[in-house]
Amino acid sequence: MSNTPHLPGCGCGIDTHAHVVPEHFPAYIGSHLPADWPSMAAAQACHRHVMISGKVYRTVADTCWDTAKRLADFEAMDLDLQVVSPMPELLSYWMAPADAQQLLRYTNDQIAAMVDESGGRIAGLGAVPLQDMDHALRELEYVVKVLGFPGVELGSNINGDPVGHPKFDPFFEACEALGACVFVHALRPAGMERLVGPAPLQQVLAYPGDVGLAAASVITANLPLRRPNLRIAFSHGGGTLASLLPRLEQGWHTFPALKDSVTASPRAQAARLFYDTLVFDTPTLRHLVHSFGATQLMVGTDYPFNFHDRTPIERIRQAAFDDTTTMNLIRHNAERFLGLPSVGKRGGAR
Amino acid sequence: MSNTPHLPGCGCGIDTHAHVVPEHFPAYIGSHLPADWPSMAAAQACHRHVMISGKVYRTVADTCWDTAKRLADFEAMDLDLQVVSPMPELLSYWMAPADAQQLLRYTNDQIAAMVDESGGRIAGLGAVPLQDMDHALRELEYVVKVLGFPGVELGSNINGDPVGHPKFDPFFEACEALGACVFVHALRPAGMERLVGPAPLQQVLAYPGDVGLAAASVITANLPLRRPNLRIAFSHGGGTLASLLPRLEQGWHTFPALKDSVTASPRAQAARLFYDTLVFDTPTLRHLVHSFGATQLMVGTDYPFNFHDRTPIERIRQAAFDDTTTMNLIRHNAERFLGLPSVGKRGGAR
Repeated sequence: MSNTPHLPGCGCGIDTHAHVVPEHFPAYIGSHLPADWPSMAAAQACHRHVMISGKVYRTVADTCWDTAKRLADFEAMDLDLQVVSPMPELLSYWMAPADAQQLLRYTNDQIAAMVDESGGRIAGLGAVPLQDMDHALRELEYVVKVLGFPGVELGSNINGDPVGHPKFDPFFEACEALGACVFVHALRPAGMERLVGPAPLQQVLAYPGDVGLAAASVITANLPLRRPNLRIAFSHGGGTLASLLPRLEQGWHTFPALKDSVTASPRAQAARLFYDTLVFDTPTLRHLVHSFGATQLMVGTDYPFNFHDRTPIERIRQAAFDDTTTMNLIRHNAERFLGLPSVGKRGGAR
Repeated sequence: MSNTPHLPGCGCGIDTHAHVVPEHFPAYIGSHLPADWPSMAAAQACHRHVMISGKVYRTVADTCWDTAKRLADFEAMDLDLQVVSPMPELLSYWMAPADAQQLLRYTNDQIAAMVDESGGRIAGLGAVPLQDMDHALRELEYVVKVLGFPGVELGSNINGDPVGHPKFDPFFEACEALGACVFVHALRPAGMERLVGPAPLQQVLAYPGDVGLAAASVITANLPLRRPNLRIAFSHGGGTLASLLPRLEQGWHTFPALKDSVTASPRAQAARLFYDTLVFDTPTLRHLVHSFGATQLMVGTDYPFNFHDRTPIERIRQAAFDDTTTMNLIRHNAERFLGLPSVGKRGGAR
């Protein structure tokens, strides 16, 4: 493994994990306003409060919706392209499907407007109301065929069912057929009752656990085998999957019931999934490359939320991978995940 | 880092994670037999079914209770001393405290008999009914002062509350005062609703998550700071903690609410906890040493259950640590955890 020298920024990174909150939320059209329909309230300069069920869900900066301000931050982060997806709480799996579809259509169109303003430097992942398969399939077609997005964002669970649950098979079949990539992000995680401390521990400790179990569910459901052309990625470095995978592999060799139901090695299946690099730690990043493969990791930042990685490319360089691995992580793996041609800088957006 | 040569077995390992199931369960003495009071049923040769609530909870081998058979396995596993604790489902936090105490007292006495039979090669960790502080403190005193055990086993959660919950502070205060070590083992884990596949996934995937959140709860509750002389260990390599710790550290620097409530760096606190090596993977073991420190890991096997590590010492040798680290992991860290004098082979049991 040769070391990559400490280069000045290449400005060529592709960030696959960044979020959007629209500047406004639409008025609800219908007869039964959902209690958790979001709205915006004034906050400090350049910020707004996202209000849900009468409470401040999160206070967000205008970089959530202001394309010019977002683009102005690319240089410091060494980014060429950023793939944006809705703030996960907006995914609205808990609303009636038609209500969720109304909100998600608006959000998807807002993202499309950002993509259009960006001069090819922002790509979008859409949201679909996966609590209802028919609605989800229709919105998937809309974001891929009409808006031209490379794929969609899903929560790690849909009202408690992890993404590997067989009920979602028709959705992944459609994604594979359309060539749509799937980015799975932590949402309303399991394990909340095990936290001792303030509210941010949900994001800090419970999110990675839910993503890890979501990725494991995809493996134990053999999704990479059944949908070999599906491109699916997991946020936060796959969460806890790196800790779970060796035990899952050993358990697969130990328990006949697992060997019967999981039809290929969990390790081999994990090497077919994608993961972002959002782990805030160089040795852990190296361990992920060892665990999942140098071809499966791609930059993720959680921009522009407070808890985002401000130096994602620098962190990859610090890991001192060989040059091929470094460029794979910075750019080429993301191109493969997104289904973009590998045409170098400014190569691909909508 | 100099490599440890591939030596023949030293026979000096201390296994801190091994389990006991008594050969029989006692008849319940009282007026309201708990529905989940365990009993034994005949099974194939050398095995018995542990029956709970009318169903086979687990089929276990006679190595669970037969001291001679257990000792006969030490040589192949390169062990000098094994620290045994109850099969976690026997911890009985869900029973009325007096009923649990009746079952746990019997189990503790059975473990003491195995220790007595072992010629110094088995040490015991006792069980306490932590659903009731008074009962738990009395049983702690019994196992430490009467039976002479080095400490106790706790579940990762007690009826849903992780071990870091402040309600357990008096118990840890007593452990510290008595010099009793605490081994925390996964039990009735969170995240079960996120599993897709057969029953063994509880052990394989959900156990590590619950242990990881238990260890994180101890850190976010500042237990290592408040009880600096408490020796507390976590099973299964700390479960998912290695995946959570970098994010917890970064979150601690990011969220004022976390910085206010967690009064020292999560990384620094994690380096004061102990962990077993039960991860079934050499690169992961190396990553744990990097994450938690070469002084904090000690052998764990889950012997004699099906899903146990048959070559725990060989696996440590394969990691090619320097000689000091190798011997720390094989033996010396366990001596420190158990409060045994470091007197070399056959140095310490009851």
